Amino acid sequence: MKKIGILGSTGSIGTQTLDIISNNDSFSIEYLYANSDYKTLYQQIKSFNPKYACINNENSYKELLRLIKSKHNTKLIFGRDKALEIISNVEVDLVLNAIVGVDGLKPTIAAIKNNVDIALSNKESLVLAGEIVQKLAKKHSVNIFPVDSEHSAIWQCLKGESSNDINRIILTASGGPFRQLAKENFDQITVGEALNHPNWKMGNKITIDSATMMNKGFEVIEAYYLFNIDYNNINILVHPESIIHSMVEFNDKSIKAQLGLPDMKVPINYALNYPIHSSLDMESLDLSSISQLTFEKPDIDKFKCIRLAYKSLEMGGTASAVLNISNDFLVNLFLDGKINFTDIPKYIDYSLEEHPYSSMVSLEKIYELMEWVPKFLINKIGVR
Amino acid sequence: MKKIGILGSTGSIGTQTLDIISNNDSFSIEYLYANSDYKTLYQQIKSFNPKYACINNENSYKELLRLIKSKHNTKLIFGRDKALEIISNVEVDLVLNAIVGVDGLKPTIAAIKNNVDIALSNKESLVLAGEIVQKLAKKHSVNIFPVDSEHSAIWQCLKGESSNDINRIILTASGGPFRQLAKENFDQITVGEALNHPNWKMGNKITIDSATMMNKGFEVIEAYYLFNIDYNNINILVHPESIIHSMVEFNDKSIKAQLGLPDMKVPINYALNYPIHSSLDMESLDLSSISQLTFEKPDIDKFKCIRLAYKSLEMGGTASAVLNISNDFLVNLFLDGKINFTDIPKYIDYSLEEHPYSSMVSLEKIYELMEWVPKFLINKIGVR
Repeated sequence: MKKIGILGSTGSIGTQTLDIISNNDSFSIEYLYANSDYKTLYQQIKSFNPKYACINNENSYKELLRLIKSKHNTKLIFGRDKALEIISNVEVDLVLNAIVGVDGLKPTIAAIKNNVDIALSNKESLVLAGEIVQKLAKKHSVNIFPVDSEHSAIWQCLKGESSNDINRIILTASGGPFRQLAKENFDQITVGEALNHPNWKMGNKITIDSATMMNKGFEVIEAYYLFNIDYNNINILVHPESIIHSMVEFNDKSIKAQLGLPDMKVPINYALNYPIHSSLDMESLDLSSISQLTFEKPDIDKFKCIRLAYKSLEMGGTASAVLNISNDFLVNLFLDGKINFTDIPKYIDYSLEEHPYSSMVSLEKIYELMEWVPKFLINKIGVR
Repeated sequence: MKKIGILGSTGSIGTQTLDIISNNDSFSIEYLYANSDYKTLYQQIKSFNPKYACINNENSYKELLRLIKSKHNTKLIFGRDKALEIISNVEVDLVLNAIVGVDGLKPTIAAIKNNVDIALSNKESLVLAGEIVQKLAKKHSVNIFPVDSEHSAIWQCLKGESSNDINRIILTASGGPFRQLAKENFDQITVGEALNHPNWKMGNKITIDSATMMNKGFEVIEAYYLFNIDYNNINILVHPESIIHSMVEFNDKSIKAQLGLPDMKVPINYALNYPIHSSLDMESLDLSSISQLTFEKPDIDKFKCIRLAYKSLEMGGTASAVLNISNDFLVNLFLDGKINFTDIPKYIDYSLEEHPYSSMVSLEKIYELMEWVPKFLINKIGVR
């Protein structure tokens, strides 16, 4: 029996993970952590009977308390700090971190310090603090298993291979909803248009990141830290059908790719069951019915966020953290209708250029930047 | 220093292998074996200074003797039987068997009995006698490394994976030069048209097999023996660009594919250097410049040889050997202008149906069939 903790259990990745686990009797859920969706969390508690259920929002906690009463053995935990205590102390075999955004970092650190392997869907843990996280993971002999479809693809392609043999990584990208939109029209992109992703059903934040292609930029940074490869050897290839999830080219120019219908259950299931490709009841990919796969270079003039991601890697130090923090904040401003779509890269670049840069990163500096960047941006943009 | 023997050294695969080895100082050539091309063999002797050079054709042997004189340390060997003695007795780390057709079987058996790993380009060794060859290889702890681009692709995709996790194998096929030709016109196909393969430059025999798609049928049988998978789980997918060389689907519906520009140097180099993807100085695949990959189901009404290959696997026993022997003989008749393109599958089917079938295969039975089938076909067709 594999003991599992799930962070972000009521989100898209969390609920799909629990779907998989409900069809597999080799897992037990030790704890769940959600932000505020107490109704979904309540259903999960009833179905999976975890030892602990943590919820961050106070009103949600009260509602949940009312629903649960004394009918369950599950212990209810309120608030981020108490949740971190659970992650830091409860013994599990694997924690799945599917928290959205910068809030995912502290739980990742807590799990590593508790010597727990991590199935990592929260890419911000690596984008914000990749160097720190990987150093700590090495110290604690903790494995970080990617849950992103792209990084899972790379991870699968690297199975049995030596890192010395890697020539480059090819991250595929759907190109998002604005792949074919002319650059001149990017100013007028609405929130509704940006939330309409062609291939993947995801949360709002990540869907906007996919529309700006910052998501792909983050994935470059994530791949850099996960696979320890020079970022100049991480290429982005636009592949609108999202069938090839990513590729690795070796020194002999042989390329391995991982393919499948776009369904997050495959990477989740693989991270849960690694190294086994445990059976999943889903449709096989039929390439003859899809008939063609297409490819094109990414347009980095249109999708400036890609260039900014590589720029942050070139800058090193605190730059990737600032890229991430500023993007998170700006995406929320865009979702709230306070800035334009093209303001996102514009103000990220200001943040990169004007933040108190340091070549040495520490968690303290990152937390300071989490305070500094939003203040800087509010002032710069003049919102609120 | 890895000691290598090369069978079929003057053919397409043999010369490419020596090209690779000439750029890599970790190999020494112990012996070369060619059928009749003494001029090329002479150049190879001068360049690689093997201990032995074997040649099958008597006149070629005499010409070679004249060229070589006493200038080289290389010992010249004449004839198939003497070559088999070399293969059976000379100690090497790897023998590459790139002999074309049924003549490749005895050298494969000889190498296995000499406990030598085999880089196998001669697919007939497995199609004729897969069960015998694999049993013998197991007994002698000999590895058989595929050199076909498709089987190398599958082998690469399976690296680090458990055979329990395989759901199916997807063999890709270019579809050959007649993919889009209407079935009614198959009767009029000329030798010249059949030799004009769209993607791969290969020898005549294998190019015709590619035009009839018998090559793909053989590959199904080869995959069946190499990877020990139910032939119903080996699918053929037509992919005219020949960029994806084959794929493996696992139980979680995750598919791994191996891709690259169509160049036999990649699978040859991989078999020589396994498990390392040793650097090859060749172009990287740029999918954005290729722009699209297409896929379709194979038309088994047009390409009857595919159906015959599966039929031979269903029949078991001596059937696959008969498929292979009859095809070899019929392709030569077609190349000599004595039968039509559509006669190839027609007479293969007669051979399957009318041969003295046995469910138990032995080398003796196969050698008997090598005598029986051509006589049967000459009589049936009424040629010569």
